[in-house]
Amino acid sequence: MTDLIAHITEKARAAKTAAGLLAVLSTAVKNRALRAMADAVSAQAADLLAANARDVEAARRDGRNAAFVDRLTLTPLRIDEMAKGLREVADLPDPVGSISSLTVRPNGMQVGRMRVPLGVIGIIYESRPNVTADSAALCLKSGNAVLLRGGSEAVHSNRAIATVLREAAAKAGVPDGAIGLVERTEREGVRVMATLDRYVDLIIPRGGEGLIQAVARDATVPIIKHDKGVCHVYVDHPADLAMAEAVCVNAKVQRPGTCNAMETLLVHEALADDWLPTLLARLRREGVEIRGCPRTRAAAPGIAEATEADWSAEYLDLILAVKVVRDLDDAMAHIARYGSQHTDAIVTSDYARAHRFLREVDSAAVLVNSSTRLHDGYQLGLGAEIGISTTRIHARGAMGLEELTCSKFVVLGTGQVRD
Amino acid sequence: MTDLIAHITEKARAAKTAAGLLAVLSTAVKNRALRAMADAVSAQAADLLAANARDVEAARRDGRNAAFVDRLTLTPLRIDEMAKGLREVADLPDPVGSISSLTVRPNGMQVGRMRVPLGVIGIIYESRPNVTADSAALCLKSGNAVLLRGGSEAVHSNRAIATVLREAAAKAGVPDGAIGLVERTEREGVRVMATLDRYVDLIIPRGGEGLIQAVARDATVPIIKHDKGVCHVYVDHPADLAMAEAVCVNAKVQRPGTCNAMETLLVHEALADDWLPTLLARLRREGVEIRGCPRTRAAAPGIAEATEADWSAEYLDLILAVKVVRDLDDAMAHIARYGSQHTDAIVTSDYARAHRFLREVDSAAVLVNSSTRLHDGYQLGLGAEIGISTTRIHARGAMGLEELTCSKFVVLGTGQVRD
Repeated sequence: MTDLIAHITEKARAAKTAAGLLAVLSTAVKNRALRAMADAVSAQAADLLAANARDVEAARRDGRNAAFVDRLTLTPLRIDEMAKGLREVADLPDPVGSISSLTVRPNGMQVGRMRVPLGVIGIIYESRPNVTADSAALCLKSGNAVLLRGGSEAVHSNRAIATVLREAAAKAGVPDGAIGLVERTEREGVRVMATLDRYVDLIIPRGGEGLIQAVARDATVPIIKHDKGVCHVYVDHPADLAMAEAVCVNAKVQRPGTCNAMETLLVHEALADDWLPTLLARLRREGVEIRGCPRTRAAAPGIAEATEADWSAEYLDLILAVKVVRDLDDAMAHIARYGSQHTDAIVTSDYARAHRFLREVDSAAVLVNSSTRLHDGYQLGLGAEIGISTTRIHARGAMGLEELTCSKFVVLGTGQVRD
Repeated sequence: MTDLIAHITEKARAAKTAAGLLAVLSTAVKNRALRAMADAVSAQAADLLAANARDVEAARRDGRNAAFVDRLTLTPLRIDEMAKGLREVADLPDPVGSISSLTVRPNGMQVGRMRVPLGVIGIIYESRPNVTADSAALCLKSGNAVLLRGGSEAVHSNRAIATVLREAAAKAGVPDGAIGLVERTEREGVRVMATLDRYVDLIIPRGGEGLIQAVARDATVPIIKHDKGVCHVYVDHPADLAMAEAVCVNAKVQRPGTCNAMETLLVHEALADDWLPTLLARLRREGVEIRGCPRTRAAAPGIAEATEADWSAEYLDLILAVKVVRDLDDAMAHIARYGSQHTDAIVTSDYARAHRFLREVDSAAVLVNSSTRLHDGYQLGLGAEIGISTTRIHARGAMGLEELTCSKFVVLGTGQVRD
């Protein structure tokens, strides 16, 4: 345990030292480093695949399921995507040093807010080794040092990737310690890292509920959770029903394993008898298992009963809970009670109800006449994203480069003092 | 202890319920309530003074010092200021519901970020009873429920103020529970409140270092600290020396007990022999005790030696540490090592060095040619402030109404789905 604390503390201290230098590193150097990192990932693909093979073999030996092994596995294509991701971050605008608005006060002084890096960002994550490269790139571009702590299942992959990135970055002029990897993956390390508030400015846990709760319980470092999404689509009446069908199918089927996929469908009672059965038939053809309220089951035969647990379930799978509601108020009450304040959409042709839904539904993203799957950094125009925050403070919803910074007040005076 | 937990939990639960209603309360109702609260404070001044007299008497009986008793004491003038503060908050623009920018994505959907309340804000504070009214006003205007927890020394004052505010607010249409006061002031209550993350969305501790550390240690609720300010003025060479004198005197003397007052003066060595002695003589005439580095002591006789502890001291008093530095880099290194990243200023006539100071000094407010005392919500144009945050995430530096909100993504679509 003493060893483990010493190892993590040493990495965190090195990151803190690097952060001071990174904060003033020029955009040109950062971009050059990101492109060099991309080149290095491609050039050393064989080494990365070999390291990954050791993790995959261990996962198979431990009897992990196919989905787990798939998330863990690197392929030449996935390594290409990793390199492409690094280049894309190089192409994004640098948020650091930008001043959002410079206003003049009555006494003549100019006041603005300048974007500056947060400092040291800890990322605690599971399985997918591409998180190592994505997180390192976004933190570097935003002027932050990163302290990466992946899971034991990907330790060889993460070490290999971090080494390739670190060496390429160093040659391009990035300070030592800017890309830190905690190489020991004992469970207790999470607690150690989450209490190093002397060195670490923010922790983002990316993974399952167990991981997030473990980090949140012990943390003295501020954390931004990327927690679960129990996302709803409410189909109102009147609505464009062809649009409603397209949105519902997309929200459920396009990639059901993601946090912004629809988990519960709410349908206005005026649509229960005519339109709902057609939609459900379509969803079932797409492979979706339906679990319905009594009214839903009366409208379409052969549907399982939704239990109380279904209304707050994040299936991450081709399963959908369906409930017929009286009206908008009933739909919003259901969302307030069972939702996770992640992503919720309404399909309607009524102006006033669209307006109320936008204003009154308290979720990180609220959409009118569009799919919940659009709640994503690329889709919303942030460029790359580090994830979707379910924390209310600092950054809510999709987080891009700007959300990895904070601001400071800058005052340009000509001798002003306080009366 | 069970009783205490039940009391605080009940207050927090009521606040959470109120928060749902407050989030959609109209600006007109909120402003009407704030003005009614101001009227009630004035109308019931005699009751407030009587309640406060009990607290003051107890403080005297307990042998509290004069500064403590002064902070605690209400006077007719202070009650007028409290009422005036409530009216000023009514006059500020409502941040809730505003959309900062609405951009159109290539697929035609409009994306914006809407300001929404944080939810329930806990304020844990000491002595000054005016914090009760200020915090209630700012939280109400920003659509948040507030859970106030003042110290035992002000329990009668706080209860009287909260009751007056709550009754006036209720008559104006503010939901029950919107202005909650924890009426039991046992020390353990701080821990109870700071771990009620089910109901409380943010805690702002306002008070001494002991209080802030106690909250931070145990909190599972996100917190924004209002911690200490070891603020610097660096007088560069060349600089307008009349301006430098005015800024230094203002930063130290105008109100030395505040967190943005100068605590350490750094002076370029070219100014050590001629200008520094004149400045120090002026400061001493203003009643300031000087503690200097060897070079400072050589330049002006009769100055005490600054110890290592002086460089990181927050005196909050008419005491000033003074150090002669080689140049800008030396000054910035000193600030990075000993400062508290609160408020730091440079006085210079050199463009490039002003630019570097702004960019490289990592503090919540960085000022050129102006007094550190200007780091304040009113001075910077935010309107009223709830305090000055020393936390990096969410809100850094002076916090106004907008910093008591978060944002959500709003998407106005016409049938967009994800490819």
